[in-house]
Amino acid sequence: MPESDYELGENRYGKSRIRLVTVRRGETQHDLRDLTVAVALEGDFDAAHTHGDNTGVIATDTMKNTVYAFARDRLTGPPEAFALELARHFAGYDVVDKAIVDIAEHPWMRVPTDAGPAPDAFHRPGFFTRVVHVAVSHSGAIEVESGLDDMTLMKTTKSAFTGFDRDRYTTLAEVDDRVMATKMRVTWGYASDRASEAGFDFAAAGDRVGAALRTSFAEHFSPSVQASIWIMAGAIMDAEPSIDWVRMVLPNLHHWTVNLEPFGLDNPGQVFVSTTEPHGLIDATVRRRASG
Amino acid sequence: MPESDYELGENRYGKSRIRLVTVRRGETQHDLRDLTVAVALEGDFDAAHTHGDNTGVIATDTMKNTVYAFARDRLTGPPEAFALELARHFAGYDVVDKAIVDIAEHPWMRVPTDAGPAPDAFHRPGFFTRVVHVAVSHSGAIEVESGLDDMTLMKTTKSAFTGFDRDRYTTLAEVDDRVMATKMRVTWGYASDRASEAGFDFAAAGDRVGAALRTSFAEHFSPSVQASIWIMAGAIMDAEPSIDWVRMVLPNLHHWTVNLEPFGLDNPGQVFVSTTEPHGLIDATVRRRASG
Amino acid sequence: MPESDYELGENRYGKSRIRLVTVRRGETQHDLRDLTVAVALEGDFDAAHTHGDNTGVIATDTMKNTVYAFARDRLTGPPEAFALELARHFAGYDVVDKAIVDIAEHPWMRVPTDAGPAPDAFHRPGFFTRVVHVAVSHSGAIEVESGLDDMTLMKTTKSAFTGFDRDRYTTLAEVDDRVMATKMRVTWGYASDRASEAGFDFAAAGDRVGAALRTSFAEHFSPSVQASIWIMAGAIMDAEPSIDWVRMVLPNLHHWTVNLEPFGLDNPGQVFVSTTEPHGLIDATVRRRASG
Amino acid sequence: MPESDYELGENRYGKSRIRLVTVRRGETQHDLRDLTVAVALEGDFDAAHTHGDNTGVIATDTMKNTVYAFARDRLTGPPEAFALELARHFAGYDVVDKAIVDIAEHPWMRVPTDAGPAPDAFHRPGFFTRVVHVAVSHSGAIEVESGLDDMTLMKTTKSAFTGFDRDRYTTLAEVDDRVMATKMRVTWGYASDRASEAGFDFAAAGDRVGAALRTSFAEHFSPSVQASIWIMAGAIMDAEPSIDWVRMVLPNLHHWTVNLEPFGLDNPGQVFVSTTEPHGLIDATVRRRASG
Repeated sequence: MPESDYELGENRYGKSRIRLVTVRRGETQHDLRDLTVAVALEGDFDAAHTHGDNTGVIATDTMKNTVYAFARDRLTGPPEAFALELARHFAGYDVVDKAIVDIAEHPWMRVPTDAGPAPDAFHRPGFFTRVVHVAVSHSGAIEVESGLDDMTLMKTTKSAFTGFDRDRYTTLAEVDDRVMATKMRVTWGYASDRASEAGFDFAAAGDRVGAALRTSFAEHFSPSVQASIWIMAGAIMDAEPSIDWVRMVLPNLHHWTVNLEPFGLDNPGQVFVSTTEPHGLIDATVRRRASG
Repeated sequence: MPESDYELGENRYGKSRIRLVTVRRGETQHDLRDLTVAVALEGDFDAAHTHGDNTGVIATDTMKNTVYAFARDRLTGPPEAFALELARHFAGYDVVDKAIVDIAEHPWMRVPTDAGPAPDAFHRPGFFTRVVHVAVSHSGAIEVESGLDDMTLMKTTKSAFTGFDRDRYTTLAEVDDRVMATKMRVTWGYASDRASEAGFDFAAAGDRVGAALRTSFAEHFSPSVQASIWIMAGAIMDAEPSIDWVRMVLPNLHHWTVNLEPFGLDNPGQVFVSTTEPHGLIDATVRRRASG
Repeated sequence: MPESDYELGENRYGKSRIRLVTVRRGETQHDLRDLTVAVALEGDFDAAHTHGDNTGVIATDTMKNTVYAFARDRLTGPPEAFALELARHFAGYDVVDKAIVDIAEHPWMRVPTDAGPAPDAFHRPGFFTRVVHVAVSHSGAIEVESGLDDMTLMKTTKSAFTGFDRDRYTTLAEVDDRVMATKMRVTWGYASDRASEAGFDFAAAGDRVGAALRTSFAEHFSPSVQASIWIMAGAIMDAEPSIDWVRMVLPNLHHWTVNLEPFGLDNPGQVFVSTTEPHGLIDATVRRRASG
Repeated sequence: MPESDYELGENRYGKSRIRLVTVRRGETQHDLRDLTVAVALEGDFDAAHTHGDNTGVIATDTMKNTVYAFARDRLTGPPEAFALELARHFAGYDVVDKAIVDIAEHPWMRVPTDAGPAPDAFHRPGFFTRVVHVAVSHSGAIEVESGLDDMTLMKTTKSAFTGFDRDRYTTLAEVDDRVMATKMRVTWGYASDRASEAGFDFAAAGDRVGAALRTSFAEHFSPSVQASIWIMAGAIMDAEPSIDWVRMVLPNLHHWTVNLEPFGLDNPGQVFVSTTEPHGLIDATVRRRASG
């Protein structure tokens, strides 16, 4: 076969949107888990691309089956642990260099009833989705990122935006008290040595992050979305020493004050148009200094 | 002008997707409301259609302005009251026969912080959207419907489906213990005399409905989705005498038990594929008997 | 059993979002169909609701199976014919008063290649979705509605809005040349005697409707969206005598002229912000007069 | 100020979802453009994050204004050229290291009427969205990527999947004739020297890519999605020498053959369930060899 003019670059493949619900049927109550799982593999799959030779290719259907089979007995802890089990399994194939597992866990809560929390009925809050991104190499090295996605938050004061650049295309007025609303994605990376500890408690770490995020979001004064990220990311790392970095992707969902003057009314920060389009989008990572 | 071969039938027009956030800035804390409002009018708008004569046509932009202006001071109670104020305003125009206002209220909660609930920071749960449908006629007659939409619920037991018809196209097995999941829309209609009372407490009525719905959902045994509607609708009307009828549109979001036998595992109701497509869809109204 | 305080009102049930693709493998080329089908039944299902008695209940899973089985050999003509076959089948059950079948057909076209249209490769345009709504009663009476949904259209001139009502909440300026954009749903009802004819050509009728709609949309001068509906609906009924009525649900997706004066530029109808929220929404039916 | 334990990592900010429609009003007909634009900047914005100092920060509102102002006179060619003009403008600010502009162009076509293509009425096909990603550094270096997104394609034959790995979790049968459907994102990178040529014809290049993609998609035999990417990417680079690499993100939207045996019917590749969840996902880049 003649040498090709082309070569294969970065590539990965896998199965996405594996929808998975498990029910653990305890003596007095049931426990419910609801996950969307994606598996992706990197490795020696060149022949599949360049010669149509599927030898060694793990079918994405097999990945799906594996996820369901593992869920039977091994989805008992936080999603990070389940992702690691899956990724380690796939990283064990000879052809695989790196196995990546992404999980979105959709929280459910027990339905509150007149007789207390239901043992076997659930409803789904939407405060956020728990997300996990795990990569395991064939040699066993691991990376663990966790996060919260679609976290919809609003501050009705303690947010300003002043002192910015003004050029010929600038019409925005400075404002020292505005509404700040967002649908945030925050992710954080665990130090590899901590995440590798047997029994590292990802659930407790995640809870500490969530509490720090909520408290700092509510309490800080925001001179800009950029500054808010710096402040909240710092609060998270202050609260959780096992974390090396925090990334926030934070849309600024503008709430515009409605001009009510034509109707003989003032509007001292009371009535707003809620918009999603266009929106500001701030994406920044804050890292722990090596010698911090 | 020659008589047309055609005539105008049912028609209405208005403004939809009016996005509205209000902030009430109290001494110690803020209150937040977040509504999506739609206004529609029926009336004598034939000339606008048939002759391009816009005399008397209330611009949909004017409707939007009115919603924002009214929100300045009048959005202080439940969405039903705000919808009624708006609908009464529009029903007062000479050309209007009927004004219809639909509101979806998106609940927000105070962010929990280390120092307690935040006074001026909020996050958005997704348990449900509060919906309101109000119609006011030019003569002043009113209809008030309230509801909960996008209410995602799951029962992990006490649900069965047996004894149904079997014909040549039937392959479904009878099952005496299944998962029942839904993303429900439930609406209810208030008796006109009750809804017309000055100061009728829609918020308290809505809370009683919600509690009855949650408790009955969790506690009842479901021989079918149809029966579940009958049982839950009855529980709602038992709890709230001001309601004449309850309608439930209840998709049956199937959770299929995964066959794990090929992997040497049993699956006694533990691992499910969560699906949305296709889904059963049951839509039924239960009414209080006139002489009930 | 004691008589209940409640009674069952309007109710129906069925299966929604049945996704169906068929491939007909001809000698020289393949033909592709892509439908989303919903089946709903009305009838004597009271006992299922009120007593949990599923006798006679046709499982929605059976409906799904039937749709796929019928698609094997009977999906050879327009979606109206397939919907009628399905609805007649379900209307034949003793317990059924009325069977309703809704179909959305997603058009695909042959991929254009250097060698001409592909015999067995397709791509999917998004001009519109073909929709069909059919109801058949147990006695055999039929209703057939057809339509086009999600039809995204824009006129860049020949649209105005003047002479409308001005009150204290009106700020909208009159405009004699605006952009009119919409994502329309248009449906039409066939006269029962015509739709009942063996071999009535729904496809040809639909084509005539589409052509009349496109031509009238492009050519007419619009003094308002209301008038546009009247004009286009009339053009459709002029073109297709088998149609009794036309309904249009027509959002007015506003395109606002951007104010470029701060940047030293005029903007004579050149640069627009495209919006979807809020939007006007006009919903009107035009009927053929009985003695038209 | 004490040195922080933390440092700012990767960061960028900008404005997303800038919705933009332009109308060019020619003598005999109008021309319509419909874009969604996003601007993002990287540069010396540390003080904004770490000290709440907005000096030099270009407000995202200013970015939006700039996009609309530039659209007045400069959106006359392909989206790549408009993106480059915008990115060069933003890269010219002293604080900016790199300006990134992403454009999605939504194609519209003239409405076909009985009198031919309309001069001033348009409808929107959905074959694909044209996407452009441009980065310009402060020193003037440019990168230009173009692409097609949401391109929905189906092959009804000439697709197989055999010879893959079988392990304890494998249940998938080998299949030598299957349906292959996808909603693809394909992007390609221009050689910098070519993209930097004054007057390089991005539109013509994009047309050649589109033609090569469509023809190769339709004509090739696919032993796997991986192989399809290799084949189609090669065909694209064969057709367009200015391109250095092609990346395809190709979900495998499974179409499962329905088992009709319970109903006494065979199903030789005729009736399929169309699914989106779960789906395979293949992501690969093919590069031209340096000395190719």
